[in-house]
Amino acid sequence: LRQVRKSKARIYPVNPKESKIEGLQCYRSISEIGEEIDLAIISLPAQHVLETIKKCAHADVGNAVIIAGGFKETGEQGEKIEKQILEVKGKMRILGPNTLGIYFPRNKIDTVFLPVERMQRPKEGSIAFISQSGAAAATLMDRLALYGIGVSAFVGLGNKLDIDENECIDYFANDQKTKAICIYLESFSDPKVFVERCKKISRKKPIVVIKAGRTERGKKAASLHTGSLAGSDLVVDGALKQSGVIRAQTPNELINLGRALAYTIPPKGRRVAIVGNAGGFCVTCCDLIESHGILKIANLSPETKSNLKEVVLPFASVENPVDLTASSVDKMYKDAIEILVESKEVDCILCGTSPQPPGLTEKLPEVIGKYAKRIPIIAYLVGGREVINRIKSFEKLGVAAYPEPESAVKALEVAWQWAKNRKIE
Amino acid sequence: LRQVRKSKARIYPVNPKESKIEGLQCYRSISEIGEEIDLAIISLPAQHVLETIKKCAHADVGNAVIIAGGFKETGEQGEKIEKQILEVKGKMRILGPNTLGIYFPRNKIDTVFLPVERMQRPKEGSIAFISQSGAAAATLMDRLALYGIGVSAFVGLGNKLDIDENECIDYFANDQKTKAICIYLESFSDPKVFVERCKKISRKKPIVVIKAGRTERGKKAASLHTGSLAGSDLVVDGALKQSGVIRAQTPNELINLGRALAYTIPPKGRRVAIVGNAGGFCVTCCDLIESHGILKIANLSPETKSNLKEVVLPFASVENPVDLTASSVDKMYKDAIEILVESKEVDCILCGTSPQPPGLTEKLPEVIGKYAKRIPIIAYLVGGREVINRIKSFEKLGVAAYPEPESAVKALEVAWQWAKNRKIE
Repeated sequence: LRQVRKSKARIYPVNPKESKIEGLQCYRSISEIGEEIDLAIISLPAQHVLETIKKCAHADVGNAVIIAGGFKETGEQGEKIEKQILEVKGKMRILGPNTLGIYFPRNKIDTVFLPVERMQRPKEGSIAFISQSGAAAATLMDRLALYGIGVSAFVGLGNKLDIDENECIDYFANDQKTKAICIYLESFSDPKVFVERCKKISRKKPIVVIKAGRTERGKKAASLHTGSLAGSDLVVDGALKQSGVIRAQTPNELINLGRALAYTIPPKGRRVAIVGNAGGFCVTCCDLIESHGILKIANLSPETKSNLKEVVLPFASVENPVDLTASSVDKMYKDAIEILVESKEVDCILCGTSPQPPGLTEKLPEVIGKYAKRIPIIAYLVGGREVINRIKSFEKLGVAAYPEPESAVKALEVAWQWAKNRKIE
Repeated sequence: LRQVRKSKARIYPVNPKESKIEGLQCYRSISEIGEEIDLAIISLPAQHVLETIKKCAHADVGNAVIIAGGFKETGEQGEKIEKQILEVKGKMRILGPNTLGIYFPRNKIDTVFLPVERMQRPKEGSIAFISQSGAAAATLMDRLALYGIGVSAFVGLGNKLDIDENECIDYFANDQKTKAICIYLESFSDPKVFVERCKKISRKKPIVVIKAGRTERGKKAASLHTGSLAGSDLVVDGALKQSGVIRAQTPNELINLGRALAYTIPPKGRRVAIVGNAGGFCVTCCDLIESHGILKIANLSPETKSNLKEVVLPFASVENPVDLTASSVDKMYKDAIEILVESKEVDCILCGTSPQPPGLTEKLPEVIGKYAKRIPIIAYLVGGREVINRIKSFEKLGVAAYPEPESAVKALEVAWQWAKNRKIE
């Protein structure tokens, strides 16, 4: 109730025992309200849900979110009640049961049942996040909030009794505020529809999916978690590839890759330049990129190297990686990136910007962010508290930045893969 | 100067132009001090270092740290000066040049040239961290400080003119405060000595190594970074395996794995139980463990499951993973872990403790930590700011905890691998 009151919606608490809740007039039954209800948030134990849905249907409620667990995921009895709900719901659309809820920062509709002290809400952004697992979603959103990463919306699918991932994908495909769609799934509602739909949409709007339950034990766990029946992972993997979807392996990766695809202009080729201030991480990036074989460390011409020599410190390296060293200042990043962009010898830039060198200021993200409209740039920066602030700054500028080089490398690789896939098909 | 003054050492600033620095009497030359000097911290540009080392040698200084870069890593001229330094240094031992310095929290000797505002210092702990890359080390230490992770010592190797990794390994093998040795290397000083030494030591004290410069481009970058000449990676990989060393792929993984090995009692077998409160992450862990094939998800007996049923919520799952759900409270963790330990059906526990569920308190790490002496436990917890606090709590209790399940899975796998290697040899 406290959460939804932050929106402009008119709120009608319903409870047979109270006359007021949090200062709002309370109704004994939904039929008493006498107004058209768009959304019923049903926060009752499982055994009272069927009766309430009947009442909602009778009152012509448009949509309902059923929070309670205790349905299909617990066995036959729960599955039976789900079927009964479907029979009585009429035209009403239902999200859940067993769902964390929905969160739309654009109009502050927030039915997530965790208080803000337990789960910080992400700010408004461009990633639509759809999740079959509520707890995984809650932990991830709390993490997004820490790093200042925004979402266009969150939808918790829960048991998918009515509204499923396919319908959500359709919705967010047409949502102007959404630049990438990230989905945590344990099972497909209708794999065929999923593949067909994603095939069409993913060429225009990137879709990242983690399909958990890849292994036998994982599948069993998924079935106990959300009552999902998962098929063979080989089939799933093939289907996802066919549909142009990017597959993530872990929940963190889901959002990491979604961000890269939502923010970064698509690379025109696979030649990458690494610009950094910590030699060790430059070497690590080189090793990761070379061993994955997806991107290619660009070979810089003698002319470009000599141009770079003029703007960096005498002991800095102008081979690729361009190691500006721990004695670098903001302007060296600007000058080096300018030269690399102008050279036309690189298609994208991996930018190491760890904040420890004393010559770097908090303006560095801005300096780098300006180039993100001309060339695809992904940033990484390792360290402590200051890293969190810098990632927030990058986020505001629409540059995907990561607290470890391995995530940044993967993100840039996926940006290239998505760009390439679009061209081929 | 400000950093080393925090120690109990007597400090003598040397500068020909000043009479006082930061309130301390300043000497024009090292020969003027007239006291036995244990350590000279040489904070001068490269061109003045040779002359200063001569003076230090003449004054019978025991050890010197040369901070400046501009030696072997920049070409022939620099390499020549390095050789000259070796010729004039006498008995003196030298760390560097091109080193971030040393940091020994036990006696507050801290020659790291970055101010605390740029690089937070980790507290005292049980990991010895040795690094050939200064910047990678600085960023990592800043991160360790954020999560409350301690080090027994840090040594920046730099160009390894005199003191090298092999000597450091020997030192920390005998250091009571060090429980695991973590090394970032770009080249081996003497690979044969390294392998022989590690073979002996790694059975008693775990050694984790990241050898950067695995690929051709990575090697080239490493050579420009620290003047290292790296050999074939296949040879390196074979040698590391022979020597019982755990190999990390990225700097973050280096410390992640080091912590697991330093804190966790060695698993006696590969049967793992997953206990968590977020079903989605439990499924992810299952998938990771099964697909890696190193650990095995333990099969719980009907008796154990029925014991678990009695202590968890009706809709929680008592299959392995044991999903306590988002409605869990601290005591359910305690009871479930107690039953799993008593069952003798599991060798180690992967414990998901994300702090979002409203029934969990900040005491949860303590509840879990008590069992870490009876069974190997690794924790993961995903989320925002509260996760950082909880990881700090786990750290104080000597439990390795990670802000993402994938790192925790890898850590537990490596704990098992190390335990197994020790038994076999």
